[in-house]
Amino acid sequence: MTAQTLGVGVIGYGFMGRVHSNAYHQIRRAFWPLSPDVRLVAIAGRSQPAVAAAAARFGFARYETDWHRLIADPEIDVIDICAWHDVHAPAALEALGAGKHVLCEKPMALTVDDARAMRNLAVEAGRTHRVAFNYRFAPAVIMARRLAADGSLGQINHVRISYLQGSLANAEKPYPWDDRTTGVLPNLGSHAIDLARYLVGEPRSVFGFVRNVHPVRPLRGEPRRVVPTTADDLVVASIEFENGALGTLEVSWVAAGRKNQLTFEVNGSAGSVYWDLEDLNRLHVSRPGGRGFENILVTEPADPFLEGWWPPGHILGWEHLHANLIVEFIRATGSEPMAETLGATFEDGYRVAVITEAIEASSRSGRSVDIAY
Amino acid sequence: MTAQTLGVGVIGYGFMGRVHSNAYHQIRRAFWPLSPDVRLVAIAGRSQPAVAAAAARFGFARYETDWHRLIADPEIDVIDICAWHDVHAPAALEALGAGKHVLCEKPMALTVDDARAMRNLAVEAGRTHRVAFNYRFAPAVIMARRLAADGSLGQINHVRISYLQGSLANAEKPYPWDDRTTGVLPNLGSHAIDLARYLVGEPRSVFGFVRNVHPVRPLRGEPRRVVPTTADDLVVASIEFENGALGTLEVSWVAAGRKNQLTFEVNGSAGSVYWDLEDLNRLHVSRPGGRGFENILVTEPADPFLEGWWPPGHILGWEHLHANLIVEFIRATGSEPMAETLGATFEDGYRVAVITEAIEASSRSGRSVDIAY
Amino acid sequence: MTAQTLGVGVIGYGFMGRVHSNAYHQIRRAFWPLSPDVRLVAIAGRSQPAVAAAAARFGFARYETDWHRLIADPEIDVIDICAWHDVHAPAALEALGAGKHVLCEKPMALTVDDARAMRNLAVEAGRTHRVAFNYRFAPAVIMARRLAADGSLGQINHVRISYLQGSLANAEKPYPWDDRTTGVLPNLGSHAIDLARYLVGEPRSVFGFVRNVHPVRPLRGEPRRVVPTTADDLVVASIEFENGALGTLEVSWVAAGRKNQLTFEVNGSAGSVYWDLEDLNRLHVSRPGGRGFENILVTEPADPFLEGWWPPGHILGWEHLHANLIVEFIRATGSEPMAETLGATFEDGYRVAVITEAIEASSRSGRSVDIAY
Amino acid sequence: MTAQTLGVGVIGYGFMGRVHSNAYHQIRRAFWPLSPDVRLVAIAGRSQPAVAAAAARFGFARYETDWHRLIADPEIDVIDICAWHDVHAPAALEALGAGKHVLCEKPMALTVDDARAMRNLAVEAGRTHRVAFNYRFAPAVIMARRLAADGSLGQINHVRISYLQGSLANAEKPYPWDDRTTGVLPNLGSHAIDLARYLVGEPRSVFGFVRNVHPVRPLRGEPRRVVPTTADDLVVASIEFENGALGTLEVSWVAAGRKNQLTFEVNGSAGSVYWDLEDLNRLHVSRPGGRGFENILVTEPADPFLEGWWPPGHILGWEHLHANLIVEFIRATGSEPMAETLGATFEDGYRVAVITEAIEASSRSGRSVDIAY
Repeated sequence: MTAQTLGVGVIGYGFMGRVHSNAYHQIRRAFWPLSPDVRLVAIAGRSQPAVAAAAARFGFARYETDWHRLIADPEIDVIDICAWHDVHAPAALEALGAGKHVLCEKPMALTVDDARAMRNLAVEAGRTHRVAFNYRFAPAVIMARRLAADGSLGQINHVRISYLQGSLANAEKPYPWDDRTTGVLPNLGSHAIDLARYLVGEPRSVFGFVRNVHPVRPLRGEPRRVVPTTADDLVVASIEFENGALGTLEVSWVAAGRKNQLTFEVNGSAGSVYWDLEDLNRLHVSRPGGRGFENILVTEPADPFLEGWWPPGHILGWEHLHANLIVEFIRATGSEPMAETLGATFEDGYRVAVITEAIEASSRSGRSVDIAY
Repeated sequence: MTAQTLGVGVIGYGFMGRVHSNAYHQIRRAFWPLSPDVRLVAIAGRSQPAVAAAAARFGFARYETDWHRLIADPEIDVIDICAWHDVHAPAALEALGAGKHVLCEKPMALTVDDARAMRNLAVEAGRTHRVAFNYRFAPAVIMARRLAADGSLGQINHVRISYLQGSLANAEKPYPWDDRTTGVLPNLGSHAIDLARYLVGEPRSVFGFVRNVHPVRPLRGEPRRVVPTTADDLVVASIEFENGALGTLEVSWVAAGRKNQLTFEVNGSAGSVYWDLEDLNRLHVSRPGGRGFENILVTEPADPFLEGWWPPGHILGWEHLHANLIVEFIRATGSEPMAETLGATFEDGYRVAVITEAIEASSRSGRSVDIAY
Repeated sequence: MTAQTLGVGVIGYGFMGRVHSNAYHQIRRAFWPLSPDVRLVAIAGRSQPAVAAAAARFGFARYETDWHRLIADPEIDVIDICAWHDVHAPAALEALGAGKHVLCEKPMALTVDDARAMRNLAVEAGRTHRVAFNYRFAPAVIMARRLAADGSLGQINHVRISYLQGSLANAEKPYPWDDRTTGVLPNLGSHAIDLARYLVGEPRSVFGFVRNVHPVRPLRGEPRRVVPTTADDLVVASIEFENGALGTLEVSWVAAGRKNQLTFEVNGSAGSVYWDLEDLNRLHVSRPGGRGFENILVTEPADPFLEGWWPPGHILGWEHLHANLIVEFIRATGSEPMAETLGATFEDGYRVAVITEAIEASSRSGRSVDIAY
Repeated sequence: MTAQTLGVGVIGYGFMGRVHSNAYHQIRRAFWPLSPDVRLVAIAGRSQPAVAAAAARFGFARYETDWHRLIADPEIDVIDICAWHDVHAPAALEALGAGKHVLCEKPMALTVDDARAMRNLAVEAGRTHRVAFNYRFAPAVIMARRLAADGSLGQINHVRISYLQGSLANAEKPYPWDDRTTGVLPNLGSHAIDLARYLVGEPRSVFGFVRNVHPVRPLRGEPRRVVPTTADDLVVASIEFENGALGTLEVSWVAAGRKNQLTFEVNGSAGSVYWDLEDLNRLHVSRPGGRGFENILVTEPADPFLEGWWPPGHILGWEHLHANLIVEFIRATGSEPMAETLGATFEDGYRVAVITEAIEASSRSGRSVDIAY
């Protein structure tokens, strides 16, 4: 394998394994010639028949039932961790130790200690590291970040981020995973927290209510057995940022009627923007001298990542955000420094973990918690 | 004056005096025959030429420059307080003492003590008392309340209320009132707090950040003189309700690009609703068995207050909410008990004041504050 | 009666009589001091008890059961015709002959010949004449017209106007009027045709399909009796304008789900606008150099007619369009020439009648019809 | 090559060649195991370096500079025609003659005669034939078709279809193709016409205005040379359907501000639907007994083609419509008859050509033209 082609190993063949695998294929055609190029070497998973099928379906040369073997594989330069949350830290640490570039799904780790260890090793290892906060990679979100960062919105005063799903609104529905302890805050809230930092900057202090409104549910696969489900399913939080802005975070998967609605609004002294994941190609922008919000389809050739995709108005779907994320990750492994790091590094993932824990702590104590990384 | 026609005296001829006066005229035609009927007896204000002009313009039989004379007037049965905030408590107390029905603009009082005294006297006096929380009176908002109350949305989990204006986003703009101490929380936030209780019920505990992002501004009328403006202009808060629901409140008049955008969303275990004041005739409703939000123009003849207005799709404007509010107030003075009290009583106004103060206290202390009325 | 106060007589106390009467009251307060001022002298209608009640309700000094007496009344300077369509021509002709200013509801007349006679006499009489095309008077529509007229949109290429209601979608519903011969084209389509001319200019040629999709309906008041209903209930038309633009018109009251949705879009070589009556305060504007449509609430103090109404974002309702229309009409009776005639004159009403008839003729012949006034 | 895997040859490597090639790869993973499966055998194009690069990029085993060789290739079972319009008819006829299944981009042919010949040979050949009307394959559009077809909307009265782009609004912009004779009606209008038939049924008669509003433009590549551009750039048409419904079609690429906005609305006596390509996952549905349009994200597992894609609310992009189209085409080549033919056959393509020509004829003659296939 030359320096020009990275061997990729993916751990996990579930939803995220499928999304990432698809993305590697897509970007090879879309951003042709991809540099460095990628080759799907192997995929790992616990069930032999399932991982064998996944390897065939997703175009991997081979598969493993033990992810350690992926990391040990000299043909693999990139470890992409799509397995369940408890695998993130051990796999990332081992992969970094083996000199691999690492892409890790969110939430980065189950504890702040794990996240810190991952961050520390990543910095030390000097390889490219990313947490898969894919919503950073909607071209419209990148436009929002740039408008916030370059002063177009004036002094940023206020940000509102909300991630609402209704998939668990019904208390009669089983929890969809065996692990019933990690809830909506790490799962969906980590996206919202990451966007808050991406758009506005560092929080100074947070306060939140973290709640479980449906504390018992039928067991998955045994609907007559009702079991405790301790994971949080609804969170609201207030945030004060270092730069003086205030914000709210709201995360729920018990919001009947909502499918996958991640939205934000950033209000500044000179302008504002808002965005909705369910209509992800569009950014609404209020500018100085304007009279309202301009409804912008961020699909022009000069928009971020659009050089790889389709003509104006031929909209991208949800899966393209992961494709853009993986392009940025792959390009970042190259020797050239990048003008702008759009992806979330392990530093970012660690900070999200710190903020997550602070919200949980404030909910227990009834006191706002200052953020210290 | 017979029991059938109430004499009305309005204190204040500014924006709200104009809105209320207009409403009394409108409802006499719209809800014909209004019962009890109303007669605009007198309007009070400090400036003689201005109040004289207002009396002529708004169709009052006479005017006063001293509001105490309005209250003393035996032809006046209803005192409607539209003057600046510091007049609310003394005028309401005096009017209740004189046996008048009282409608008072928001915020009901500058302090919780004043609000409590007003509430206590109102209960004792046995007259009809209302605080002018006009957003309760959008037919779409009434529909939302009924859907939340009758179980159509299931267990209420989550409410998001946001009131955003951009009128003071620019720090070069003077504060529009001489009184630079009462800020966005009492002025706009009181509406949001009232809607939270109206839609979801009583808060158990609150936490907020109350901030002033533009602490100095040019003086009104003397733009070269820059003066401190201590009033809050941006507030975010988290709420936990007695029934277990969580919520956020956001209030700003420094949100560039926003005009008068009061919005709410209520998410339940079975359904959800959302609403936007700038498109106030519409309620978006998700119901069990549905697949998305139904976009409902609440303008059918059977919808609340629509018997007085126009055919389906012939939308109401902002001013009609005050008209509906005043109809309810006037009808409530009648001897018949009403099936449903839609208007905010002084009890409601007092509770909004308590919650307002709790948010301010939490912002100072960094601790959540329990609500006790 | 001095020149400063116009005596007003309204013919008809139905829906439109109520809307117009309400507007005269509203504008006296909103546009204070109104100049010339108005006084509601008398209202006419066939049923004595009904017109007596209407006079009381709507604040007229007296009433008549014979509209000729209104026209003969020397205290009346303005005749406002809100009666059924067949009264429009005779009342307008008689009123103009008597030297009155005349405001006439749409459709102006039942035939082109009547409309032409009305136009001719109006020009000759030298009094102010208007047809109540109220949708011209949404501030957002005026903004659209100005952008189209002043070149902001470049060369106008295309206009799409659609007026859809669902009130008669159900064939089991009786026709709401005794007169079952004038259908959706004169009733709703006249608004759409008027807007086409207002926004784009004169049509050169038209082609349309004019259809009745529910040719029998239960009789009003006798639901078991099914009777022929010959009025058109659905019309589509293609238009070519003198300036080379093309357009479509669509009018229906058999569009289930639609309440009162009048929309237009004007596309030019440099910019475009669109508007929806059900959200009437808003204009969506695409401009050169922009990237999308700006969502503008046309509610700023400097916007047309807003000097009389409420602060930014405090939206107007449907009834305010008639109020604006009547202000313009009343002001136009003054001796000063106006900078811009926003209202539809009898010339405009006549031209709408010509175009209406041309669409009907094209539907019968299968040929496009050139417009000749 | 077994019956289980179809060899695919694609003619043309431009925009559509890229879209189709991408789709074959996507569907192999998304609809795994695809049956029959596909293998990308060869791609054809005139320029050797370009087609060689395309073959590498898009994953074809080989390439050809002469498309006849693709058709002659025994390893190829499917000919997919993405070349310029003038190649459609000869390539399709030759491919059908050689016993291939054929997918042909739109417009199917440059003349009705060519389209008829293609249709006739396709029927005779007994192979699977499709025209790439991809907008049929938005899951939301399929839902609309089913609601219209199964009576949920009652009697269909009215359809409005509009396809607006602004790419050529500016007259200073060169025409983007060397062929300056086929304009917006065949290019974009064919989609709109196809949807009209798909949603409502067969037209009885049409009338249209077909115009070129910018008859001269700079030459592509030689911006100082201004040349005649005779292709139509703006079309409006009125349609009457066999079932009594009326409709409008509007097609433009001179609509400043519009990117790729294909929209339709179907109004029935009992319900209505509307859709917008720029928000393509959503269908707005009014149903009997409802009060407004339900805003449905058509992204549930049971929705059409969603078995291959992502969870609810994880939206599809524009490219997925071609993927769905090609899945249907590939599956249709199998021996099992399909429950529902969603794709457009050559019969459909031919009928679109007939209607296109009828609109052009009506524009020349000023008479409506009856449709006869």
